[in-house]
Amino acid sequence: MKQIERVAIVGGTHGNELTGVHLVEHWLNDPSEVERSNFSSELLLANPKARLAVKRYLDQDLNRQFNVHDLKNHLLHGYEQNRAKTINQSLGPKEDPKVDFVFDLHTTTANMGTTIVINSDDPFVIDMAFYIKQHMPEAVLFYEPESRMENNFLASIGRHYGLLIEVGPVAQGLLRADAIENTRQSLRHGLDFIEKYLNKELLSLEKSYPAFQFVEKIPFPCFENGDIKAIVHPERQDKDYEVIQPGDPIFLTFDGKTITHEGDEPIYAAFINEAAYYDRHIAMSIMNKIELSRS
Amino acid sequence: MKQIERVAIVGGTHGNELTGVHLVEHWLNDPSEVERSNFSSELLLANPKARLAVKRYLDQDLNRQFNVHDLKNHLLHGYEQNRAKTINQSLGPKEDPKVDFVFDLHTTTANMGTTIVINSDDPFVIDMAFYIKQHMPEAVLFYEPESRMENNFLASIGRHYGLLIEVGPVAQGLLRADAIENTRQSLRHGLDFIEKYLNKELLSLEKSYPAFQFVEKIPFPCFENGDIKAIVHPERQDKDYEVIQPGDPIFLTFDGKTITHEGDEPIYAAFINEAAYYDRHIAMSIMNKIELSRS
Repeated sequence: MKQIERVAIVGGTHGNELTGVHLVEHWLNDPSEVERSNFSSELLLANPKARLAVKRYLDQDLNRQFNVHDLKNHLLHGYEQNRAKTINQSLGPKEDPKVDFVFDLHTTTANMGTTIVINSDDPFVIDMAFYIKQHMPEAVLFYEPESRMENNFLASIGRHYGLLIEVGPVAQGLLRADAIENTRQSLRHGLDFIEKYLNKELLSLEKSYPAFQFVEKIPFPCFENGDIKAIVHPERQDKDYEVIQPGDPIFLTFDGKTITHEGDEPIYAAFINEAAYYDRHIAMSIMNKIELSRS
Repeated sequence: MKQIERVAIVGGTHGNELTGVHLVEHWLNDPSEVERSNFSSELLLANPKARLAVKRYLDQDLNRQFNVHDLKNHLLHGYEQNRAKTINQSLGPKEDPKVDFVFDLHTTTANMGTTIVINSDDPFVIDMAFYIKQHMPEAVLFYEPESRMENNFLASIGRHYGLLIEVGPVAQGLLRADAIENTRQSLRHGLDFIEKYLNKELLSLEKSYPAFQFVEKIPFPCFENGDIKAIVHPERQDKDYEVIQPGDPIFLTFDGKTITHEGDEPIYAAFINEAAYYDRHIAMSIMNKIELSRS
């Protein structure tokens, strides 16, 4: 039996994803929704300067700064690189953290509904994701197991590798009631799971669920000068998690030519047309559909 | 008969509305889509520095800098205030412009479909909007007549007060195929209208269309510190141009209270939850539904 005493709920890791920002600010005024009987919930606004600027980040993406080596590297001194060290001090240190679990609240411009990002093979974490899915059947499980020490996400800072709650579509810099509600619901179920787990309540969870395992990010077709030459095809837009068969359209050029999936196998995509990835010209993430089992 | 010799097509007046940016860049490479037989089409990327920063503007909103007095006021020296003077030099001057008509291409995060913004009572402009509506029945006419000299929009710089083509929903900083297609279509119809008008072709236009006349912008309910206290109600989100009856929900607070329309008359709204208006805490624009007639 693992002990969970301190849970961190983080919003505004990306300063233009206002859902987490405003929920954390709301709970700082009235924490009743996130309080449970047998552990403490702490609230953190991760990137307040980016939130004021309504930007994803000022110098570097904060959610790429939590690799254990980078956290010790004082040559990395951008705003977010310093901020990561401060957060590591208050929630970590990563090697022996004060907090046991981190929920990190994100939004995406892609049509990904309520996506639970699982970066761990830890049975406790998988069980929590399965509990959320049991209570929100529409939620999607996105599976990308990582070494907690090596990984650079903020949610890797706790004793267990935490969950990212990723809700979309939401434009940057705005608040949608549906996204707020989905975020709150998934978080409440996650907190309920921890409470029941600590109370040793018997939970009858499914043995397995379909899930999507991350393969790679694919770029937009570009001109030699680096400008985007084609956009996401209208038949692909908003079709996150739907199957893409060989020959199916993926991109459309500005002069009307369709670019199709040229592989021999069906694939799946998410983060389709995510605005935050345009700076690196990334069009979408490709995944395999898998059956994810509890151990 | 008015003479139209030079038409300007402007994209990227707001640097994070990429639809116009990329269309103008595409047409600079291949102008065939916007060329017509009897007038010239010029292309302008209005705010290149904001486009590089993927921001609406750097110092001030460029689309508020074209009042005739401001254009002469050299104390206004922010990046966009200087840029407006440069554009006034090349397309204007406003008092005696070189270009006869300006199309300004915009997007919104609100669910406004294809909206044609008419800021003029000029029969030529109304007829053009009616021609676009005839060919795109789904387009919405947004009517807000202004004094061309006093108004501060870029589209006011030509001999006639031009049209804004406003398409949504599109998140800031990304390209959607549907928005690009709607923008291209409305622009092509506008250009076709000018060509036919100059050729004295007989156009059988409707006598009147329903339209929406701007009344006022309304703010989000806010805390004393200025933070947003309530969001757009889920029953109001994405319902641009739908009727709001007395008692209908408008906002939802973070602790779940509904705020309703307290007036006695039905109203209509657009720019519902437009991300660009959050800095001024504006939640939506209120309009009256009218019947707009040709003269």
